[in-house]
Amino acid sequence: MITEAIKSKLRAVVGDENVLDTNLDRFGYSYDSSFIPLLPANNPDIVVRPLTTDEVSKVMVIANAHAIPVTARGAASGRTGGSIPVRGGMSLALDRMTRIIEFDERNMMVTVEPGVRTIDLYNHCAAKGLFYPPDPASWKFSTMGGNVAENAGGMRAVKYGVTNNYVMGLEVVLADGRVINTGGKAIKNVTGYNLTQLFTGSEGTLGIITKMTLRLISMPKARNTLQLMFPSLDDACATIHAMLQAGIVPAAAELMDKMSLQAVARHRKLDIDQAIEACVVIEIDGEDTAALDKQAEAIEKIARSLRVAEVRIAADAKEAEDIWAIRRGLSSAVGAMAPTRLGEDISVPRDAFPEVVRRIKKISETHGIPIAVYGHAGDGNLHPSVLCDLAKPGEEERVHKAVDEIFAVALEVGGTLSGEHGIGMTKRKYIASALGEDGVEVLKAIKLALDPKGILNPDKVW
Amino acid sequence: MITEAIKSKLRAVVGDENVLDTNLDRFGYSYDSSFIPLLPANNPDIVVRPLTTDEVSKVMVIANAHAIPVTARGAASGRTGGSIPVRGGMSLALDRMTRIIEFDERNMMVTVEPGVRTIDLYNHCAAKGLFYPPDPASWKFSTMGGNVAENAGGMRAVKYGVTNNYVMGLEVVLADGRVINTGGKAIKNVTGYNLTQLFTGSEGTLGIITKMTLRLISMPKARNTLQLMFPSLDDACATIHAMLQAGIVPAAAELMDKMSLQAVARHRKLDIDQAIEACVVIEIDGEDTAALDKQAEAIEKIARSLRVAEVRIAADAKEAEDIWAIRRGLSSAVGAMAPTRLGEDISVPRDAFPEVVRRIKKISETHGIPIAVYGHAGDGNLHPSVLCDLAKPGEEERVHKAVDEIFAVALEVGGTLSGEHGIGMTKRKYIASALGEDGVEVLKAIKLALDPKGILNPDKVW
Repeated sequence: MITEAIKSKLRAVVGDENVLDTNLDRFGYSYDSSFIPLLPANNPDIVVRPLTTDEVSKVMVIANAHAIPVTARGAASGRTGGSIPVRGGMSLALDRMTRIIEFDERNMMVTVEPGVRTIDLYNHCAAKGLFYPPDPASWKFSTMGGNVAENAGGMRAVKYGVTNNYVMGLEVVLADGRVINTGGKAIKNVTGYNLTQLFTGSEGTLGIITKMTLRLISMPKARNTLQLMFPSLDDACATIHAMLQAGIVPAAAELMDKMSLQAVARHRKLDIDQAIEACVVIEIDGEDTAALDKQAEAIEKIARSLRVAEVRIAADAKEAEDIWAIRRGLSSAVGAMAPTRLGEDISVPRDAFPEVVRRIKKISETHGIPIAVYGHAGDGNLHPSVLCDLAKPGEEERVHKAVDEIFAVALEVGGTLSGEHGIGMTKRKYIASALGEDGVEVLKAIKLALDPKGILNPDKVW
Repeated sequence: MITEAIKSKLRAVVGDENVLDTNLDRFGYSYDSSFIPLLPANNPDIVVRPLTTDEVSKVMVIANAHAIPVTARGAASGRTGGSIPVRGGMSLALDRMTRIIEFDERNMMVTVEPGVRTIDLYNHCAAKGLFYPPDPASWKFSTMGGNVAENAGGMRAVKYGVTNNYVMGLEVVLADGRVINTGGKAIKNVTGYNLTQLFTGSEGTLGIITKMTLRLISMPKARNTLQLMFPSLDDACATIHAMLQAGIVPAAAELMDKMSLQAVARHRKLDIDQAIEACVVIEIDGEDTAALDKQAEAIEKIARSLRVAEVRIAADAKEAEDIWAIRRGLSSAVGAMAPTRLGEDISVPRDAFPEVVRRIKKISETHGIPIAVYGHAGDGNLHPSVLCDLAKPGEEERVHKAVDEIFAVALEVGGTLSGEHGIGMTKRKYIASALGEDGVEVLKAIKLALDPKGILNPDKVW
């Protein structure tokens, strides 16, 4: 319960116009990009939009004093309900904190506030010849605070890793309002526990990230894209595997199954041969076009030996963009195929990828529920999309069984519940199966140590 | 106080021959490779040498029940007293746990026990064409448990990162004997907090690491070494910087100042021109010798423009090894120059390297204390060696002042106290200056959450 007296205190910190409490405003902050139903609405009691670290700190002091739940929020592009204020309380919107604080070209590092959009960061750095590689599918609207809090992945992980591989240091406001700095610009740093990596991916449950220092790398001088069409899913998987074993590390290696491909075909009015069971899109990069041609040739040779039906090597940037547009539009295209789509995000050891795809197909058949599969085959991160109509009798139960089985397969082959979306609300009930009861107890102990009143993003992760 | 009854219980777990308590044995486990004096001895009350995770777990149950301090120990090659049982209790020696449990060539990962020596791991992987890059100077005797617990660095960090960049998953025995598994073989993994990175570098204070899964990369197909001699230290630093800015990322870029060089010359009976103020040793690697020749040429060009006196490009592996032998023998050679050597390990933003070297030289002059400087210039990690004779009146005070000033310089330029050696006992008193009081409070809160009785490696880090 947030009293008028508390609201007054919050207004005094961030200004009247940055404290929102109308029903409409509250509803606007009640959902994210996951498949959690909009109703019954998970409205916050209040929305607070601070501009500075000092304001965040003062807001947290108030929240902590009154034990008000605080859920941080950027662009709400998360897929697992991380920014949904499930216990009400305060939605702490960080979208006004959009400064690129420092661009340190000499040390190849950039320091930004949480509200900076991923694509804006990328473009800012690219303009100076530097490269920020992580590229979650949502990068055109997601913000860096969320990217770090969720440890966002993306397509370039196979070669360049994910967000946490680029986080050098953080400024964090703790639950009680204290502000700490972790890490920094020293490339090697073993002073104290690795708090930088503890807060990265902690889904807003341990602290509010108010600044982040990210390392950059040199922009690859040349890039190209290949599209490979296979009549056999196994051959498609085998091609990616053979390529990696041969020491060819592409910047991205994405796989789409037939159902995903046909969804895109319908969505974008393309004509894709029904005999094609899988499409692989590969980005390669390197020093010059000669190096790329050599790589492309080696990949084509492997694919031909594995019965590829069609090899398309982009002739220019425009054609490359056309190919990637198919992959980037996949999520919407697949989502449009059924009233409800449960998009999952399992991640498995790379060599288990083909087996897992086969087993998901079997789960789909067993339960009579269509499951489209696509994902980052190069790094073992799959996105099975369970397509369903929850209005049908018995459908919900069948869907839940199918999802349970998908997670069981992931864990059985030594994989995990989430590669890049986080646990949030949607996978809470599975976490003990992945980490064990003792593992979850360790998470809880750390949480209790840093947030004794449990106000930061409650009812998430476990 | 460890009673006979407790000793009996420990013997029942690990066998009589693996519980040591003679004075001589205890003294053997009282020191490490730091400059902490051997006397008064920091003897453990007992030494316990388990063979399996289950034994470690049972030992921890006993230790926890009786609140016995437990200090894990591998090869005791640490530089900051991490494995010294400063409060007595138990030295938990993990040197019998030497199995390479699984070599997963397809996923390019290896799972090992903590007692495996770094060089043995490297060789095991290299024999199959895979590369484990981290190479702490102690790699011929240090063990992987210590490498992970201290987050060991090395010379290849500039291109390949340090130990924690290769740790995918851990098996950890907690203070109370519970066993948890963190991370795994999934390349992308955001299930729960990043405990893998929390335990990595936690210096034995949060848990006992009993297994680690490490990722490997393809072995570079070609390597070469360059040695550059400069009449000016500034030009040497500028060469490394210009090279990195030009997008040339060497596998290693090491710098030695004149004092270090002359120490090696004396030690190895070489004749090095007194006009040489700095030596830079660079390792380059790549796809083939043509690529290396191109890199070497570009580096030579930069060095020539910065007034290098001598460029030596190794003609073969033997000559490369000769050049590296100088760098690898540096620590011993410098150590032999004075009765006491305090080897430090600051790490600074890369572009601050030349300024910091200059300021350390000034500190040396001000206090009349010789300080040899060498280090990993490519990543900003410096090892100033304060050379002194503590028997001289007033020397100790002067030395402490000099060391305080070195740390202050590191922090002033945005660097940190330790790049790769850890905090251990030797830098405890400085940690609040680096992390702030609130930062240290967060470390303590996490420690208390995971080890409520404070038995794991007490009196370390803060």
